[in-house]
Amino acid sequence: MGQVIHAIQDDYADDFAWCFGCGRLNENGYHFRTYWNGEHTETVYEPNEQHIAIPGFVYGGLIGSLIDCHGTGSAALALHRKNGFEPGSGEVPPRFVTGSLHVDFLKPTPHGVALKVVGKVEEIHPKKWKVMSEVYAGDVLCAKGEVIAVVMPASFAQ
Amino acid sequence: MGQVIHAIQDDYADDFAWCFGCGRLNENGYHFRTYWNGEHTETVYEPNEQHIAIPGFVYGGLIGSLIDCHGTGSAALALHRKNGFEPGSGEVPPRFVTGSLHVDFLKPTPHGVALKVVGKVEEIHPKKWKVMSEVYAGDVLCAKGEVIAVVMPASFAQ
Repeated sequence: MGQVIHAIQDDYADDFAWCFGCGRLNENGYHFRTYWNGEHTETVYEPNEQHIAIPGFVYGGLIGSLIDCHGTGSAALALHRKNGFEPGSGEVPPRFVTGSLHVDFLKPTPHGVALKVVGKVEEIHPKKWKVMSEVYAGDVLCAKGEVIAVVMPASFAQ
Repeated sequence: MGQVIHAIQDDYADDFAWCFGCGRLNENGYHFRTYWNGEHTETVYEPNEQHIAIPGFVYGGLIGSLIDCHGTGSAALALHRKNGFEPGSGEVPPRFVTGSLHVDFLKPTPHGVALKVVGKVEEIHPKKWKVMSEVYAGDVLCAKGEVIAVVMPASFAQ
């Protein structure tokens, strides 16, 4: 306990740390942070008071965004580990983009508690990873997600 | 042209007009507005300067949110029409929630232009509609989406 948790987004190169979802340099973004918890990845986030679908329930688009950035972050964690590194090691991790995003909304997600996303990462190609995620509000599984994350292609470089 | 375009979200009941994506009463939300253009549905939105994945390209979570609310709005337009009504008729439309959301990101989406989502709606059950969407930046098709939208269940009523 009391450990400093190293998130992968803390180590993204400055040029790639502007994402509205998970970029530490995006002033008004969500600042999602994704890290290892044993063999799973985790992202915890408490939606703000505006992030509602209807009063009392979390906005689905926020849940989709959370699964999206959790997916690219989890893939980056996994490839970084495969390369022999962990967040906080001082090594700049690979950066992924989302190829596809799928979300199944299982239950209305209650507003006012932190959401925890738990991810399992699977390599399907050295540059293409699948991240299966579950979104919990407390103990309640509210949504499931799948992201196909792809190593950022050169077309993103300006 | 100079027509007034009636969006379905303009007519949602007040209690269900707080969505961060498309609720007209959510002060800090996106205020997505979805309307008929012939047999297709449309939502146009220009991401703000913070909505980036990396500088120059739109944040995928915003595109997911856009497809999500466009999906529920399109389903509401279609069921409303099936019931004999159009937006602006004074009749309160049905309200849908998202059962599932799928997005395929085809190309990096350039930032700085309005995005147009074009939707095709299909009834798969009186309370369950499928919305296939295409997201364009100018003439370029950047993403495709599929939403299964479900008439809001009673469990959402508080």
